[in-house]
Amino acid sequence: MTLTRSDIKASAEELEQFQQGLQHLSVSALWANQGPVSRSPGGSIEPRPRAVPHVWHWLDLRPQALRAAELVGTQQAERRVLQLKNPAFSDRSVTTNTLFAGIQIVMPGEVARAHRHTMAALRFIIESEGGYTNVDGEPVPMLPGDLVLTPNWAWHDHANDTGAPMIWLDGLDAPLVRMLEAAFQEDFPQERQALSAARGLSQIRYGAGALRPAGEPPAVRHSPLMHYAWADTQDALDRLAEVDEGSPYDGLIMEYTNPVDGGSVMPTIACFAQRLRPGERTAAHRHTSSTIYHVVHGNGYSIVGGHSLNWQDKDTFCVPNWTSHQHVNLSETEPAYLFSFSDIPVLRALDLLREEPVPGEWG
Amino acid sequence: MTLTRSDIKASAEELEQFQQGLQHLSVSALWANQGPVSRSPGGSIEPRPRAVPHVWHWLDLRPQALRAAELVGTQQAERRVLQLKNPAFSDRSVTTNTLFAGIQIVMPGEVARAHRHTMAALRFIIESEGGYTNVDGEPVPMLPGDLVLTPNWAWHDHANDTGAPMIWLDGLDAPLVRMLEAAFQEDFPQERQALSAARGLSQIRYGAGALRPAGEPPAVRHSPLMHYAWADTQDALDRLAEVDEGSPYDGLIMEYTNPVDGGSVMPTIACFAQRLRPGERTAAHRHTSSTIYHVVHGNGYSIVGGHSLNWQDKDTFCVPNWTSHQHVNLSETEPAYLFSFSDIPVLRALDLLREEPVPGEWG
Amino acid sequence: MTLTRSDIKASAEELEQFQQGLQHLSVSALWANQGPVSRSPGGSIEPRPRAVPHVWHWLDLRPQALRAAELVGTQQAERRVLQLKNPAFSDRSVTTNTLFAGIQIVMPGEVARAHRHTMAALRFIIESEGGYTNVDGEPVPMLPGDLVLTPNWAWHDHANDTGAPMIWLDGLDAPLVRMLEAAFQEDFPQERQALSAARGLSQIRYGAGALRPAGEPPAVRHSPLMHYAWADTQDALDRLAEVDEGSPYDGLIMEYTNPVDGGSVMPTIACFAQRLRPGERTAAHRHTSSTIYHVVHGNGYSIVGGHSLNWQDKDTFCVPNWTSHQHVNLSETEPAYLFSFSDIPVLRALDLLREEPVPGEWG
Amino acid sequence: MTLTRSDIKASAEELEQFQQGLQHLSVSALWANQGPVSRSPGGSIEPRPRAVPHVWHWLDLRPQALRAAELVGTQQAERRVLQLKNPAFSDRSVTTNTLFAGIQIVMPGEVARAHRHTMAALRFIIESEGGYTNVDGEPVPMLPGDLVLTPNWAWHDHANDTGAPMIWLDGLDAPLVRMLEAAFQEDFPQERQALSAARGLSQIRYGAGALRPAGEPPAVRHSPLMHYAWADTQDALDRLAEVDEGSPYDGLIMEYTNPVDGGSVMPTIACFAQRLRPGERTAAHRHTSSTIYHVVHGNGYSIVGGHSLNWQDKDTFCVPNWTSHQHVNLSETEPAYLFSFSDIPVLRALDLLREEPVPGEWG
Repeated sequence: MTLTRSDIKASAEELEQFQQGLQHLSVSALWANQGPVSRSPGGSIEPRPRAVPHVWHWLDLRPQALRAAELVGTQQAERRVLQLKNPAFSDRSVTTNTLFAGIQIVMPGEVARAHRHTMAALRFIIESEGGYTNVDGEPVPMLPGDLVLTPNWAWHDHANDTGAPMIWLDGLDAPLVRMLEAAFQEDFPQERQALSAARGLSQIRYGAGALRPAGEPPAVRHSPLMHYAWADTQDALDRLAEVDEGSPYDGLIMEYTNPVDGGSVMPTIACFAQRLRPGERTAAHRHTSSTIYHVVHGNGYSIVGGHSLNWQDKDTFCVPNWTSHQHVNLSETEPAYLFSFSDIPVLRALDLLREEPVPGEWG
Repeated sequence: MTLTRSDIKASAEELEQFQQGLQHLSVSALWANQGPVSRSPGGSIEPRPRAVPHVWHWLDLRPQALRAAELVGTQQAERRVLQLKNPAFSDRSVTTNTLFAGIQIVMPGEVARAHRHTMAALRFIIESEGGYTNVDGEPVPMLPGDLVLTPNWAWHDHANDTGAPMIWLDGLDAPLVRMLEAAFQEDFPQERQALSAARGLSQIRYGAGALRPAGEPPAVRHSPLMHYAWADTQDALDRLAEVDEGSPYDGLIMEYTNPVDGGSVMPTIACFAQRLRPGERTAAHRHTSSTIYHVVHGNGYSIVGGHSLNWQDKDTFCVPNWTSHQHVNLSETEPAYLFSFSDIPVLRALDLLREEPVPGEWG
Repeated sequence: MTLTRSDIKASAEELEQFQQGLQHLSVSALWANQGPVSRSPGGSIEPRPRAVPHVWHWLDLRPQALRAAELVGTQQAERRVLQLKNPAFSDRSVTTNTLFAGIQIVMPGEVARAHRHTMAALRFIIESEGGYTNVDGEPVPMLPGDLVLTPNWAWHDHANDTGAPMIWLDGLDAPLVRMLEAAFQEDFPQERQALSAARGLSQIRYGAGALRPAGEPPAVRHSPLMHYAWADTQDALDRLAEVDEGSPYDGLIMEYTNPVDGGSVMPTIACFAQRLRPGERTAAHRHTSSTIYHVVHGNGYSIVGGHSLNWQDKDTFCVPNWTSHQHVNLSETEPAYLFSFSDIPVLRALDLLREEPVPGEWG
Repeated sequence: MTLTRSDIKASAEELEQFQQGLQHLSVSALWANQGPVSRSPGGSIEPRPRAVPHVWHWLDLRPQALRAAELVGTQQAERRVLQLKNPAFSDRSVTTNTLFAGIQIVMPGEVARAHRHTMAALRFIIESEGGYTNVDGEPVPMLPGDLVLTPNWAWHDHANDTGAPMIWLDGLDAPLVRMLEAAFQEDFPQERQALSAARGLSQIRYGAGALRPAGEPPAVRHSPLMHYAWADTQDALDRLAEVDEGSPYDGLIMEYTNPVDGGSVMPTIACFAQRLRPGERTAAHRHTSSTIYHVVHGNGYSIVGGHSLNWQDKDTFCVPNWTSHQHVNLSETEPAYLFSFSDIPVLRALDLLREEPVPGEWG
């Protein structure tokens, strides 16, 4: 039997009539509604991310955060957060397709009340003289550059017992969890949890390098370590810089890990710290994961999807999925330090992770 | 220091002004746009799925599939598929939030051309006297009740070398992959792939019960077995029914597995075959995963989110995520057989899987 | 500083004196007692297995088994087993360094009493018209060619409710478990366990190809499937032979698997079924694992460590670790079928598995 | 059919004759040679370890090590090691059944030549003013209290470029690897490897707490971190002591981990650091794994299998498998610090790990 594609030509009118007849059955003709997918001449399709590259400057954000603290209390705003909203979206609270970034401020004497949710969150501290997040009863320190985790379904409240404002970058997988319609949230019965554990407990137990309490670790899917101090992180990068070149695309880059299994800190979010040598210019690549970068210290720019994003200390910028990016450290004398978080564990778990080099602005 | 939630009352006007001032910075006040999330009095939030329960009856679908075959060729329609479109969505081609189901028809002598994509697909055969899907060169048989996999990035074309129409249920994770903006697709250089492997090859290698070729299995994340024959499946259920009661929520239910690791058949889709005893009425539960059911054989109804969905042979119905469901086999003499596929591996991988019993229509 | 190996020459007498002085401290000079390890000129050491290749012929074993049944009852002999004792060992009950093989016989009306032990065992049935092993209450059928598991710490008794003797090959990891001094054993309070589960239960639940009961599998480290029927095994090999060439060293070889994780049937023993084409002569290799072969059907020989071992139906032979081996099917018309079990999972788990081709008797 | 154990009584003579007749077949009657296993009245068997508890005192060992250095050079002794030989064994070089401990000394200017073997080794440094082990080209520092790994098949030579002797505790799985007849060894072509990597490289890459170079880790089964510095270890224990009570059996105990997967440092050996509070007396337990302890600092005793073993700084003692043990810190003011290594990963991998509390000398 000769097998081939068939060529049956109904009139446009017949087809239209057919399609209309399907509507009351909650059925539609697949071939008729494939409009939004554009295919190249060779028939290939690839992702066209809706999110756009964007940088948010600390010089803009800081005054607004302080102004917000004057205008609303933590009574009205359960979380006093300025959302870094991707310019391409008016309908969804997202920074990239799957990730959310915001600037949260807690003033002296204030508490952001205790709750928990299935959205996994991280906090990267920008300004603080102390203060803490209470995670399941453990006060986790928050000093500038520290990474603090509040994983899926962990109770958490944020408290500022210092005399200065605390400001940090919030990172969440909320856009992903909302897309998956898997968002649960609960309020803690009281405003604050009691402090039932020692300050820095998880750091003492699980942050001691390649040593951990013997025996079975806690049966959770996220890192049991809630606190990654910046001093250690920068030190690790600086020491590594003396012996390693790093990757052409990322420079020197280290991943924050779950000490129990060596994997990403949470099942939906991976965190990274990166060091660009003075004058370094990285090569361009892209991947199906998206990333939000925060400049811990440095002065440079990134070319993201053809846009040049200038950055300095404490700026935040996003690299949407499948978007080319490369970084430049403009200083000829100082390294630049970037913190970033990404949805790479999601893409990897679902076997959807791809990465490729792309021609960049330079060799 | 007394720590408490602060209560600062700016005027509505001030707040409005503040929020407007943020817009040009691509920033917005999180507390101002949390409208769509409704919280219960106790402050808790849970998913409110947008998809609604729905059943598509074979008596409606079959004539439309045959009519489609008269109207369009596989030249015009790369895939001649009637999409089972969830009534709640006009903007997305989805059956549940993450899954797609459709009815595909290939007529005698026809080929649906070779392509591949990152969307993982399965085919559950409804009508066929033979025919095959060519997966990476291997002709995989398609007889009624068979499950055929065409995983992420496997080349596949469908060919009907028999004298009768072939009709099957398509199941894909396309809504999920599109949400994640990770859809890649390519056309094969020719209309059809050469048949380079033996018919039933993967079944011979990996379908022989708890035996498989010694040595390293193929380094893929999905099942290397592409074909699960219905005769074996029904036999397995019938034999299990003689010794097991099954679950109160699902009756007797077996999962199709990846023989290499015992896990789900693909990283994003799990498949199940289920047997309801004559007269069986299952208890109600719900979970964050969504499911699409196809009635292989039987006569009954399911109560899904309060809606009664009547079903008979070859009907298809959907149970959205976090929606209560329970099943009834109306026959007092015959078992009912349901095939289903779900996104449970996605929820599990991301630590977002929850399940709970709910009060149902009966005890 | 120049670093080099030092050359200090004490007199033989001084050294002897030193070594004697150490004895009362339970200390000895390592360099003085490395006698038994012989090193090649280039300084390399490799394993020199103590076990030797050997074949046990069924024609010899069967009469002795029947005679044993006349001489001792299962009262005296908790297990009436003829041990296939490697000729190189007089001090240990071993067939290879880590594995034990024996011929066990249970006569009509007899029971071999219920016990359990940490030694993992398998039974490969040679003669039987029925009968069963009761594993944790489940009667597991024992027909010729069947593989039956009685894993670490499973209660088991063997019962012959037929009119003919049952004879099978026992395979255990007892030499390994004894070397590790980890042997525990307990008698069941009664002579026999009650039959509390359906005949063939585990086969019904876990033997249905790539389908298994949905939900969490039993939390054990071994296969939950206790019975692998020979009819299925030979069928799988014969079908595979139509499409695959097999390996140059093993011919067509399939591994019996744990359906829950796709791994070996038990953590210490892997089982294999093998088919040699008429006239097939395999190439030589060796590996750090050892293997015991049983000829299900066939007529041939194997060259093992330079020794030619002739075999026919129901013979058993051993291939010690790191010993070259290759097989010949002498029949020009019939395939030969070999069952085998090995300690390969042990070597793999401990990162001690090595394999290499070696020059054999032919090309 | 009545099934029961049969009672056939052959004469002792007949049995003897039968057994003799089996010998030329390399067969023996299992029931006749089960002598060495003694069973309790209830029929149960449990391990009776051959190794005995023993302590080796530093005050004895140190002079002998220095004397050895006078008598033999590293030309004659490839490794100048005093083996801590379990008193129960005259035929095997073992400290416990599966583990070896020794005292190795390398004098100023000396090198212990480069080789590699499948036996996995660790070094716990007792005396040193510097010096290093060159592991695959990386000089790994060796200061008192440091743990250094030289895993299975890693090239290694030891060099003393300081003015003082270096003495350390060697720990190996050699008894296990020899039992498994899987020992391979090779000499490096030269006396020493070139120093091709930076001093402390693995520590820089993989020792930075819960941070590691992003991307795929090295594809090895052991820790890529070769060096665990004592200063960090003691600090981790002291900090943990402020927040945790520890286990009743072990006091505060931490495991050295493989940072890539969170598991034991090597597939056959796990390492631990332990802190006993002033005056602490632990409860008694036993397990199927065996352990070798080294006293980093402290003054106390352990009751092991009924024997009291007194220990002070730098003493070494062994706890055989399945032998009760409990520890006492005799100081009322100072904590005691113990390093230990064990074969627990072996027992766990093979599903042979058991642990139980036992009645001890006190409450």
